[in-house]
This record gives sequence, C-alpha cells and structure tokens, in this order.
Amino acid sequence: MSEPEPPSAPRRRGRRTGGEDTKAALLTAAREVFVERGYEHATVRAIASRAGVDAAMVNHWFGGKEGLFAKAVLQVPFDPSAIIARLIDGPADALGERVVRTFLSVWDATDGGQFSALVRSVTSHDGVATALREFFVNTLIGRVLAAIDADHRELRATLIATQIFGMGIVRYVVRFEPFASIDAETLVRAIAPNLQRYLTGDLG
Amino acid sequence: MSEPEPPSAPRRRGRRTGGEDTKAALLTAAREVFVERGYEHATVRAIASRAGVDAAMVNHWFGGKEGLFAKAVLQVPFDPSAIIARLIDGPADALGERVVRTFLSVWDATDGGQFSALVRSVTSHDGVATALREFFVNTLIGRVLAAIDADHRELRATLIATQIFGMGIVRYVVRFEPFASIDAETLVRAIAPNLQRYLTGDLG
Repeated sequence: MSEPEPPSAPRRRGRRTGGEDTKAALLTAAREVFVERGYEHATVRAIASRAGVDAAMVNHWFGGKEGLFAKAVLQVPFDPSAIIARLIDGPADALGERVVRTFLSVWDATDGGQFSALVRSVTSHDGVATALREFFVNTLIGRVLAAIDADHRELRATLIATQIFGMGIVRYVVRFEPFASIDAETLVRAIAPNLQRYLTGDLG
Repeated sequence: MSEPEPPSAPRRRGRRTGGEDTKAALLTAAREVFVERGYEHATVRAIASRAGVDAAMVNHWFGGKEGLFAKAVLQVPFDPSAIIARLIDGPADALGERVVRTFLSVWDATDGGQFSALVRSVTSHDGVATALREFFVNTLIGRVLAAIDADHRELRATLIATQIFGMGIVRYVVRFEPFASIDAETLVRAIAPNLQRYLTGDLG
C-alpha cells in the first residue's frame, strides 16, 4: 500500500475497479452477508453492492454465489458446480467412494487448515451454521441426491454431514492417530461403504 | 460463603476436608493435570495433591480417574466403567445400536450442552485433544473392542470417533435439520448399522 490508512477508515468508497484489494473487500462483504442472511437469501447483488464492486466481477472471479461462498466461508478455493458434476458423473454405487475421496483430497491439500478455521467460526457464530446447512444440505449434497433420485434427501444429507464433518474433526482438529496420518486411500476404503449407505441404502 | 475471599487469594492452602468447594477445586485441578499430562500420565495422586485433597476422596466422589475425567473434561457426570459394562453386555451384532443409543441418551439429556463446550475447548487447547484421544480411543472404545476381540482396534476406534463426533456436531453444534430435532430412535436405526461396520465389519 502506498498510503497507510487510519485504522478506522471506512472500507466502502464507491465502486472499485480491480486488484487484490477489491477481491478482499468482496470476500469480507460476502462473509458478512452470508452470516446475516443465510446462504439462500444472500444475493450476489447485495454482496457486490456492499463491497462497492460490480456484480459481474463476482462471476468473473469466483464463478458466482457458490464459488464465493466456498472461498469466503468455507475458505476453500473450489468450484462447487464442478465438484457436483464430477461426483454425479459415474456409477451411483461408487458415489460414496467419490464423495470421501473428494473431501479428503481438497482438505489434505492444505493439511485441513480451512476445516479447523471453519469449525472455530461455526462454534462462535450461529449465522455460519445456518449458511453452512443451506449450502451443504440443499446445494452441494442436495443436488447429488437429486441426481440419483434418492428418497428422504434432507435426512440423508444430514447423515452424510455427520460422517464428513466427523472425518474432518478427527483428521484435522483433534488429530487422533492413526486416523490423522494414515494414507487417504485406506480411509476411502474404510469409510466409503458407510457413506454409500447414507446415500442410497435402507435407513431402517 | 461466610468470608469473602480477595480475588487473588491462593486456592491451595493445605488439605481440604469436604463440601462443594473441595469438589470444585478437584475438578479444576483435574482439568489442569489432564491437559498438561494427557489422560494416561495424569495420576489421581497428582490431581488430589494439587487440589489439597486426599486421593481417597477422588474415588469416593467420582469413581476414580475415569469418572473424574468424564466430569472434569467431558463435563458429563457418567461412570465410564458402568457404561462400558453395559455396552459389552449383549450380542456383539447389536453393539453398534447400543453405542449410538448410549451417546444420544447421555447428550440428549442436556440438549448436547456439554458436547458444544467440549468442541470449543478442543479447538482452543491442544492438550484436551490428546487427553480425549487417550480416553476415547484407548479406554472407552478400546475396552469395548478388546471385549469383542476386534482386529485393527486403533483404526476402528478412530473411525467410530468420526461417526460419534459427527453425530454430536450435527445434532448439537451446527444443529442441521431434520437431524437436530428428529427422535433419537430414528437416528439409532439410521446410524447403528454404520457404527456396527466400524466395530466388527470388513474395513476394505
């Protein structure tokens, strides 16, 4: 920065034109709006307006609302639409395996750093949990379950959340051995059949 | 209290004789020692000494080290030995069902309040995670797995931790619906077969 700002300088001074500073302002505005309104009621227009950025830039930089949520709240730079497409593309009876492998590979790439940060923010802000539910249950896993025409989609999505979040907690937060250090493919083999049951099995 | 203490009064002034104040001092000392030394290296003698209490009182009030850990760190007033005995007592192929029902009933009794507190303390103190691993993996689930002569006990115990912790996170921390409000027996039916696989099934 060429000119140091006073600590309390307002961040919103009309439309921004580009660069890292603008991206950071968009991410901050996105976190605020997602936490205030939840995932579904947050709009790209409201987030862009709060950051003083043209809404078109959100699509250009983050691939729309989903990608912005992934980067701003989950703090994982992935494109949810691409992930969903990749999960759906393949036999339904190996879907559990693809889901476990995808989460492990995204998280292992940064040693689970973002997952720990997400757990801390979830335990301290109610709004994060609400936004996370709408994104995970309705958007991410919800769309996968819709693609295979599953019944009881909301219950299945939340059961899947128990296994995915539990995997993240034990591998990256409490780091219980041997689970924390074991190779990902051993975990895929151990966990995939359980996730498959939540996706397509009889829930009793 | 008849005499107010100055705020910085030392807490350890020789052997205590009884009452709520003494119990509170024991719980504080227990938390400190478990976090500093882990579950296995913490001794009842060291905890009692730090609190200025006779070690025999730990057994009298909390049923020994396990019960003290449950009350001080897990903040659940249950007797782990009794729980283990109850889990082991019954057919091995319904063990998953007993484990899920036991955790849900202990947590549901206080709307998961202690589980939320545990998650917060785990994310902020490394020592809590270490003590929790030793207690959960080696003592609680480890003894259940030993009773059924399971192979790969440490891996199984950590897989079980993913499902149990994930269940707690989704029901009591992020409170995803319908999972957070649904009756416990529906969850027992949905989750028990998955837990049973981690206890006795082929891990791939």
